Amino acid sequence: MTTLEVGKKLVELVRAGKNAEAMETLYDPNIISVEAGAPAGGPTESKGVAACMEKGTEWSAHHEVHSAKADGPYPHGDRFAVLFSYDITQRDSKRRFTMNEVAVYTVKNGKIVREEFFYTI
Amino acid sequence: MTTLEVGKKLVELVRAGKNAEAMETLYDPNIISVEAGAPAGGPTESKGVAACMEKGTEWSAHHEVHSAKADGPYPHGDRFAVLFSYDITQRDSKRRFTMNEVAVYTVKNGKIVREEFFYTI
Repeated sequence: MTTLEVGKKLVELVRAGKNAEAMETLYDPNIISVEAGAPAGGPTESKGVAACMEKGTEWSAHHEVHSAKADGPYPHGDRFAVLFSYDITQRDSKRRFTMNEVAVYTVKNGKIVREEFFYTI
Repeated sequence: MTTLEVGKKLVELVRAGKNAEAMETLYDPNIISVEAGAPAGGPTESKGVAACMEKGTEWSAHHEVHSAKADGPYPHGDRFAVLFSYDITQRDSKRRFTMNEVAVYTVKNGKIVREEFFYTI
């Protein structure tokens, strides 16, 4: 698949709520995932599909997602960007708010080898 | 200025229609500007503030901008992303449409040294 095709498939799967399937089918086994920030100054970088899955599970444990939007892909060479918008409630504080972030993905040999999340910490 | 401060200033100036001022005050003299695509397979990369200004002038010659929105900045390390949305009319074809793109900026020593535009060619 071309970078644009990978991007379209990712957006399609995320819109259908199939995030796990997106990771299983589109991510390279050695994907590097980089957050803008991490709790308590921890590492912002993690490696591998399992680590990405775990981040998703951990995030869901703390946030209830009422709806999620994915806008994109916006391609540029071997990368593409997607804008995500989540209507969420933080489970601990019960606070409901909209969270927006931009994700930039790098594709190599038809697989996503790097994802970087842009958001205010 | 920090990366976030540069990003906020850029968005503020663009929202006020002060694109030239943004380039003059926030761009490094040797900024590298990279498009997702170029007309007729030309170079996608250009260098320097003057070249960026010229790209803007050239673009304006072919497009009438009815309104422009800038959403961001979304920071990530020494970079930040901005989502631009333009309501434009292509002067030649008289076609009016909305154009969205994501721009990713890299900051070094308080100046923007690289801008990359993500959009469907």
